[in-house]
Amino acid sequence: MWPDTRLMDLLNIEHPIVQAPMAGAMDWELAAAVSEAGGLGSLPCAMLKSEQIREQVEKIRGRTDKPININFFCHKPPKADNAREAAWRDRLAPYYRELELDPAAAANAPSRAPFNAEMCEVLTQLKPRVASFHFGLPEPRLLERVKRAGCIVFSSATTAAEARWVVEHGADVIIAQGYEAGGHRGMFLTEDLAAQVGTFALVPQVADAVDVPVIAAGGITDARGIAAAFALGACGVQMGTAFLFCPEAKISALHRAAFRAARDDGTALTNVMTGRPARGFYNRLMRELGPISEIAPEFPLAAAAVAPLRAKAEAQGSGEFSPLWSGQAAALGREMPARELLAKLSAEARQHLDRLAGAAG
Amino acid sequence: MWPDTRLMDLLNIEHPIVQAPMAGAMDWELAAAVSEAGGLGSLPCAMLKSEQIREQVEKIRGRTDKPININFFCHKPPKADNAREAAWRDRLAPYYRELELDPAAAANAPSRAPFNAEMCEVLTQLKPRVASFHFGLPEPRLLERVKRAGCIVFSSATTAAEARWVVEHGADVIIAQGYEAGGHRGMFLTEDLAAQVGTFALVPQVADAVDVPVIAAGGITDARGIAAAFALGACGVQMGTAFLFCPEAKISALHRAAFRAARDDGTALTNVMTGRPARGFYNRLMRELGPISEIAPEFPLAAAAVAPLRAKAEAQGSGEFSPLWSGQAAALGREMPARELLAKLSAEARQHLDRLAGAAG
Repeated sequence: MWPDTRLMDLLNIEHPIVQAPMAGAMDWELAAAVSEAGGLGSLPCAMLKSEQIREQVEKIRGRTDKPININFFCHKPPKADNAREAAWRDRLAPYYRELELDPAAAANAPSRAPFNAEMCEVLTQLKPRVASFHFGLPEPRLLERVKRAGCIVFSSATTAAEARWVVEHGADVIIAQGYEAGGHRGMFLTEDLAAQVGTFALVPQVADAVDVPVIAAGGITDARGIAAAFALGACGVQMGTAFLFCPEAKISALHRAAFRAARDDGTALTNVMTGRPARGFYNRLMRELGPISEIAPEFPLAAAAVAPLRAKAEAQGSGEFSPLWSGQAAALGREMPARELLAKLSAEARQHLDRLAGAAG
Repeated sequence: MWPDTRLMDLLNIEHPIVQAPMAGAMDWELAAAVSEAGGLGSLPCAMLKSEQIREQVEKIRGRTDKPININFFCHKPPKADNAREAAWRDRLAPYYRELELDPAAAANAPSRAPFNAEMCEVLTQLKPRVASFHFGLPEPRLLERVKRAGCIVFSSATTAAEARWVVEHGADVIIAQGYEAGGHRGMFLTEDLAAQVGTFALVPQVADAVDVPVIAAGGITDARGIAAAFALGACGVQMGTAFLFCPEAKISALHRAAFRAARDDGTALTNVMTGRPARGFYNRLMRELGPISEIAPEFPLAAAAVAPLRAKAEAQGSGEFSPLWSGQAAALGREMPARELLAKLSAEARQHLDRLAGAAG
């Protein structure tokens, strides 16, 4: 048994473990495996078109009828800024020359669109048990439709202030995303990276700030982390990095190799890949341009000029220009199918929680 | 009972709670209160002369015969760099003018000397149960004397690599200092702040990296944090911020006021106060010069030119030029005498650990 079953009761799931939606690193297969195994699988839709979202969800539902989460980004669309784009391309020009790429070639970066009316239409038709949002919440009119469709709304918060804000604006569950988390930071009320809060300090302060269930995220890769999250006041965990070790994840061999070599101090928050701070393994682009660059164009525009470098380098077996997202606890990851990983994590965490009090007997 | 009693057994103490040594914010009184109440009180000696160390330890021993910790810094002494110092003073000149201070006035900053033969002589005479070191370890010859005197040696580590290094070089116990921690980061094998590890990710990775007992530090201010630290693999916690809420702490009214207004996102790591990264509440100097400044002189030299600004501003009731050290979980602090706080934290943590498994019954 778990010490706090609010999340499991709310969603009617067996394990209080949410697989983090990881755009660009997974598809329906991982989400379906996690949901079918009794966790909450999440489909990242920020880089998908409407028809792709439908297709992916159909595939999940062909595999399981258990609850799923569909995830979107809620960033403000960037303003085009030609001067900034030009400065960015200038900064990248030496790499284009080195990799023998045409600087004038059109970049073929995947788009990352914020949640809009079209996506809302798809979402409300698909009616997943959970809709989750990163970088804030949809505009009130759209959020209202999502809630009327019966979706439980999750939103990320990186500070107690963000947690209070999203609850006041309609979120039913908070994902408290600590500093250790891999991928994009959900921060939306602040741009102050220096004040971002570690998972250990964030979770209890968010739990104190809001009355809704809190899911802990950031640096949770094994049963110790799951037990600690409950100790801090969470009633569930969101794990991303841990699930990228599964064969169901759709990541490159380079990314998998980086995970196998992971160490605690091998990642940093960087904005050079997309324009927004995200945590990944250090590579050459991060080291030489950042990890935080003042000139990177606004999210997601920075990605366009990086895309050809990434593609060419990856074709040559190099991840030096790729976003190799990872949290700070990747070294604790284990390679196994998602179903097996979920069952193992859940059983180990419950045993660990029992052991922690065992001496009290 | 506690789930892991290694630290309590090793030190023969009643509660697995170490009061962090906080140079400039406390003296013998807090350390004595914590040790007498069954925790491990720590006396910070980095800013004390030999005779002061003796005097302070005598005062502690007049109050309690229980184990104590005496703490020193092990930084490399800085090289004088006149150009850098001049640039720093230039940068501070507008503040000198604003506060009507003479820029040529001799600064009266407290010294922070690294552990040396004289301190070693005092330490080995005083024979505390524990000697702890920040910024690495003393040179082998001195460390050997400390160990021969019967002291158990604690050392801070901010990464698994640092933990392995200090154990290989003689540390008996690791303090895993996560990103959330207030005051100076103990980092000594790396200068890469961007790769510093959150407590949640650090503790289990350090516990896996070394065979010695691991104490968790950083963002631990209440019973939830203590329980979580044990869940992550620690057998004790080091708490600093929590004890600055005690009347025994020797901090300014300004610093106490900052604690009362604390929020999770109100601190940052800054080097503008001393030259080394340390976490404290944001103030004007941090905001306008940093929080990280490229031109701040090497630790501890940066403090000298800041000292007159701090003194004058504090005399006017302002903390805008003061180091207001704090961890990221200060909002969870409670004002009460150290003895009471320690007893409460310990009892609450044990109850919490029991509750976490309670449902298993």
